[in-house]
Amino acid sequence: MSSQSAGPRADRPIGEAEQRLLDSARDAFAAKGYHGTSTREIAAGANMSPAAMYIHFRSKQDVLARLSLEGHIAAYAALRAGAETAGSPTKRLRAAVYAFAHWHAENHTTARVVQYELAALDDENHARVVQLRRDIVATVRSIISDGTRDGEFAVDNIDVTTLAVLSLCIDTVRWYPSRELHTPESVGASFAACAERMVKADA
Amino acid sequence: MSSQSAGPRADRPIGEAEQRLLDSARDAFAAKGYHGTSTREIAAGANMSPAAMYIHFRSKQDVLARLSLEGHIAAYAALRAGAETAGSPTKRLRAAVYAFAHWHAENHTTARVVQYELAALDDENHARVVQLRRDIVATVRSIISDGTRDGEFAVDNIDVTTLAVLSLCIDTVRWYPSRELHTPESVGASFAACAERMVKADA
Repeated sequence: MSSQSAGPRADRPIGEAEQRLLDSARDAFAAKGYHGTSTREIAAGANMSPAAMYIHFRSKQDVLARLSLEGHIAAYAALRAGAETAGSPTKRLRAAVYAFAHWHAENHTTARVVQYELAALDDENHARVVQLRRDIVATVRSIISDGTRDGEFAVDNIDVTTLAVLSLCIDTVRWYPSRELHTPESVGASFAACAERMVKADA
Repeated sequence: MSSQSAGPRADRPIGEAEQRLLDSARDAFAAKGYHGTSTREIAAGANMSPAAMYIHFRSKQDVLARLSLEGHIAAYAALRAGAETAGSPTKRLRAAVYAFAHWHAENHTTARVVQYELAALDDENHARVVQLRRDIVATVRSIISDGTRDGEFAVDNIDVTTLAVLSLCIDTVRWYPSRELHTPESVGASFAACAERMVKADA
């Protein structure tokens, strides 16, 4: 390659064809699952031949890994931005849950792949994603722990409550949109209120 | 057929081969999704040939419909048994959520197929399942509505709270078992407590 060539793939801006393949794969994985989707279908959804797809991705696993890893990074960034809100544990929990539930509603197709295709990742990709999931759990756990220490919150078990709060947000990908909640804002606001109720100490 | 023959299929006790096929399909659908599973794999998992499978089921859709319909009926029966507990709305809600969450944990492989493969059902099967899902929502909604009327509960929106309570129970199929909650009893008890917190009026 000449000195004018693009740098390593990870440093280049994402190409238009690459983005079309990721969008096609996201839609197919969300609708039919990783195992129910062929590379031929991913390529066809991007108006490309299977051979052309291999210029951009080594394998179907490679496409899934990109979607899953970038999705986890984006979900964690949204959660962390909320969690870093200044204020009481109640305010931080509300902002964190709002942001995390909002992300899952707004990006529900990507988020479905992120949440439902963990078992389809190979060992190396799975390990990278598991670390991000641990960071997500730790972020929520730390707010609930702070609130419990300060007496704002009173819960039976911090780990179980953390699981329940995250579970509520994540399950959005299964049903969103519904008749009752059909905007990311309404999902965020409703689940922030539910989470506060789940943790708060009696008045 | 002679008068000694078995009656119509629906009235016969389920045969051993039929049960093996249902178990094989349940495991495969839960692991790889309906679209990621072939009839050949279902038959192989039951130690049968694909041709032998067609003696028992007309199609892969027919197998999914049986699993989904029977699963929905069982989940609804568990929920209703809890909801019919005598006592206050708080007691009924706790019993209903305990039973529904317990069912999803205890039967998490079946329940994953029940909850994740709705879109794979054909129109006729989908319509039957949707009616059962409406009955499930109505059962929880009616308890929350009773408690709100009696002043035991105070919620912003009965429909949204119903969705959140059911969502918490159903998401069990995604993660069960976890380090924190690894028995159906602990899932039922924890989520019954979470649901009570989500609805109760301030003391």
